[in-house]
Amino acid sequence: MVGSVGNGLANLADKPAPLPEELDPKKIIDSLPLEEESNGIEEKKREIVLGRNLHTTCFSIVEPEADDEQTGEREAYMASVLARYRRSLVERTKHHLGYPYNLDFDYGALSQLQHFSINNLGDPFIESNYGVHSRQFEVGVLDWFARLWELEKNEYWGYITNCGTEGNLHGILVGREVFPDGILYASKESHYSVFKAARMYRMDCVKVETLISGEIDCVDFEKKLLQNKDKPAIINVNIGTTVKGAVDDLDLVIKTLEDCGFKDRFYIHCDGALFGLMMPFVKRAPKVSFKKPIGSVSVSGHKFVGCPMPCGVQITRLEHINALSSNVEYLASRDATIMGSRNGHAPIFLWYTLNRKGYRGFQKEVQKCLRNAHYLKDRLKEAGIGAMLNELSSTVVFERPKDEEFVRRWQLACEGNIAHVVVMPNVTIEKLDSFLSELVQMRSGWYGEEKGKPPCIAKDVGTDNCLCGSHDK
Amino acid sequence: MVGSVGNGLANLADKPAPLPEELDPKKIIDSLPLEEESNGIEEKKREIVLGRNLHTTCFSIVEPEADDEQTGEREAYMASVLARYRRSLVERTKHHLGYPYNLDFDYGALSQLQHFSINNLGDPFIESNYGVHSRQFEVGVLDWFARLWELEKNEYWGYITNCGTEGNLHGILVGREVFPDGILYASKESHYSVFKAARMYRMDCVKVETLISGEIDCVDFEKKLLQNKDKPAIINVNIGTTVKGAVDDLDLVIKTLEDCGFKDRFYIHCDGALFGLMMPFVKRAPKVSFKKPIGSVSVSGHKFVGCPMPCGVQITRLEHINALSSNVEYLASRDATIMGSRNGHAPIFLWYTLNRKGYRGFQKEVQKCLRNAHYLKDRLKEAGIGAMLNELSSTVVFERPKDEEFVRRWQLACEGNIAHVVVMPNVTIEKLDSFLSELVQMRSGWYGEEKGKPPCIAKDVGTDNCLCGSHDK
Repeated sequence: MVGSVGNGLANLADKPAPLPEELDPKKIIDSLPLEEESNGIEEKKREIVLGRNLHTTCFSIVEPEADDEQTGEREAYMASVLARYRRSLVERTKHHLGYPYNLDFDYGALSQLQHFSINNLGDPFIESNYGVHSRQFEVGVLDWFARLWELEKNEYWGYITNCGTEGNLHGILVGREVFPDGILYASKESHYSVFKAARMYRMDCVKVETLISGEIDCVDFEKKLLQNKDKPAIINVNIGTTVKGAVDDLDLVIKTLEDCGFKDRFYIHCDGALFGLMMPFVKRAPKVSFKKPIGSVSVSGHKFVGCPMPCGVQITRLEHINALSSNVEYLASRDATIMGSRNGHAPIFLWYTLNRKGYRGFQKEVQKCLRNAHYLKDRLKEAGIGAMLNELSSTVVFERPKDEEFVRRWQLACEGNIAHVVVMPNVTIEKLDSFLSELVQMRSGWYGEEKGKPPCIAKDVGTDNCLCGSHDK
Repeated sequence: MVGSVGNGLANLADKPAPLPEELDPKKIIDSLPLEEESNGIEEKKREIVLGRNLHTTCFSIVEPEADDEQTGEREAYMASVLARYRRSLVERTKHHLGYPYNLDFDYGALSQLQHFSINNLGDPFIESNYGVHSRQFEVGVLDWFARLWELEKNEYWGYITNCGTEGNLHGILVGREVFPDGILYASKESHYSVFKAARMYRMDCVKVETLISGEIDCVDFEKKLLQNKDKPAIINVNIGTTVKGAVDDLDLVIKTLEDCGFKDRFYIHCDGALFGLMMPFVKRAPKVSFKKPIGSVSVSGHKFVGCPMPCGVQITRLEHINALSSNVEYLASRDATIMGSRNGHAPIFLWYTLNRKGYRGFQKEVQKCLRNAHYLKDRLKEAGIGAMLNELSSTVVFERPKDEEFVRRWQLACEGNIAHVVVMPNVTIEKLDSFLSELVQMRSGWYGEEKGKPPCIAKDVGTDNCLCGSHDK
């Protein structure tokens, strides 16, 4: 195995060996303990994957020949690469099920803007001298979200981020600046960016257990709060976990904090990556609202809304933001954002979709997604495949398909023995039927007398939802 | 003045007053000390600007009427907003001089890809299950830059970032993970994201003095190193400062470190935001190369290359990256990036331009920019306006125009008494002439017998370059 000798690092850096062209990445990925080797204990508490910079599929850049402009060969080569790539995108988009991206959008009306270098520098609310920006669209989008989450125009601050991760990084940073010695609490099923933030920001971080549904376990949360009563609490609340689409019970989290004596000594960031935008349109769903004592909410823009590039929305209270900002005369702007330079096209895409669909349009789409998710879950179970669907979610969790090629083909996100499909507005019944029939057909070849049983997923989805053979009696 | 009473915060949060529609942002921006008020000393060492979330120019989002689809009114309204916006972009792009963005690009061939949600999740070199990505282009671009900065294919790691700031955040984070107790050193003219990083990452940070040119002052650097000999050094080296385009002397920085006994106990991040890509093509310029003991280099993609949205390239040594990465099974990918989800369109834009222009094409453009920058500097001085141009730079620094409207019109970036123009490939002699004649004409009205003298900028550009009246004898 390449790259797995000794501590791995020195070996890789000192003796680079040429790699075979079509090497399977998995073959040379190996996990090794991060803890110092010298302690002699193979604890492997925290593992990292040691990767190589594989160049299996790479369109390399070739220096143009002097006569390229005359012959047109260069242009022809590039056009052919792009045409092939476009075909592969069409194919890959068709078979996309595992990631919560709404691929159904038409931004033809905006293609006229692609020729401009649109950059929203710094704070969206303070003019910068750079004129080629789209703040007027950005602020329109932010207003819409502030209204959705019930924060007054003159009491909120926010910006359009590059992705959900930036929203989490920002929310947790605001929390840390408000409570510099606060401890970060997050359920173990939180998105990995939350734990990345803790490491980046050098914050103490406490992982909280989850229920089978994927929600935070407030009994465990209480226990851990009481162990750390002397320090303020910064809490990441999941409005839809990545894997199971579970929604943490915000009201119970707040009650637990208050019962434990943390009144006025906590900061809540709501990671609403996907469901932050769906929840308000689900009947009986607990409300994410700034009328409750929360500090910030983030949501992804490329997920439910749909956008050609990753982006997100971050809303927080204006009163918190001054803890973070610093005066930057260069831009004639203070900068409380994380990134500084920001993609000015994303706000226009969001503005366009929100304006076309409106609250009503989103409500319709959310209902359709939930309906289709129920359809998928029911069909899976009818076919004898263990599956789970949280009440407020469109994420269907089920037994991980045995064949990795199948997983890749349908771009399923997997963790341990489970996989999931996130039913987005572009996922139709036809697409689900095509997926189901292919899965059922292939699965019949994976298990049987000699080939063994399907994996038990009771610990992931509960015994009621597991159909592994031991639990479906 | 609104929002400047007491500590400002409580006032803003508790008593939101309605704002006049067309309020000038500057009128309600006020600086106040961040230090605790209670000490009673008005030190104002570190100031923040307290802004409001102004809604002066905002395209608000309106809920569609039920019959909008029939009447087509909604579509017509949006089309008119977009058409007006497009016209303003044309106008603003035409008068853009102060920010280092190359606005001269034609990506018509790529408009066919705008309909896809392209997302490069996690590590560019390890396949993720999400199929709608552009890693094959990304890796091609990274290879090109690794070659430019002389690091072998199998010894580098990198990714395409959202902007120059992300490159700095990443480089400094890698440095901190390599030397957890390291102190961050950066010249005071470094980009503000460097100091933001120090605050985010809870690192000790030492600001180093600069020479008149804007370069780091290695005498002061040595002094400060010797005061902190017990801790490793993490250094941000500027390959082109933001305001003056000054290039820190990398070789002298390394020599200073070694002379002070820091051998093997330092990490250098090169912030090459703009000049990282220009320098290799400037004759006699000191070389940025991984053959020297540097840890990472970042460069912006939307600056010299030109790209519709901010982006950047980050290259570091593969051996360092394992200090940062963590295993994220969810994506079937480790994630050593900061953002996780990344814009998949940006790599295609970069790939397209690099392939078309090649090293030779960039060389030609760099030479043109330097020539035009000299032209501008000479014309300014001929007109009696103090100006400076660093030898390796295309950033012309000059006396700040007195009229703020003029500054905004030409989108000049200003700091104190100086402004600058960054001569990019899209800045032609004609554009410079038009700027110069407008400036000279307007300036004749700003100063004179009763109106006073132009500001002295000797402390910013040196007495040789100042033409304030006291220094031009």
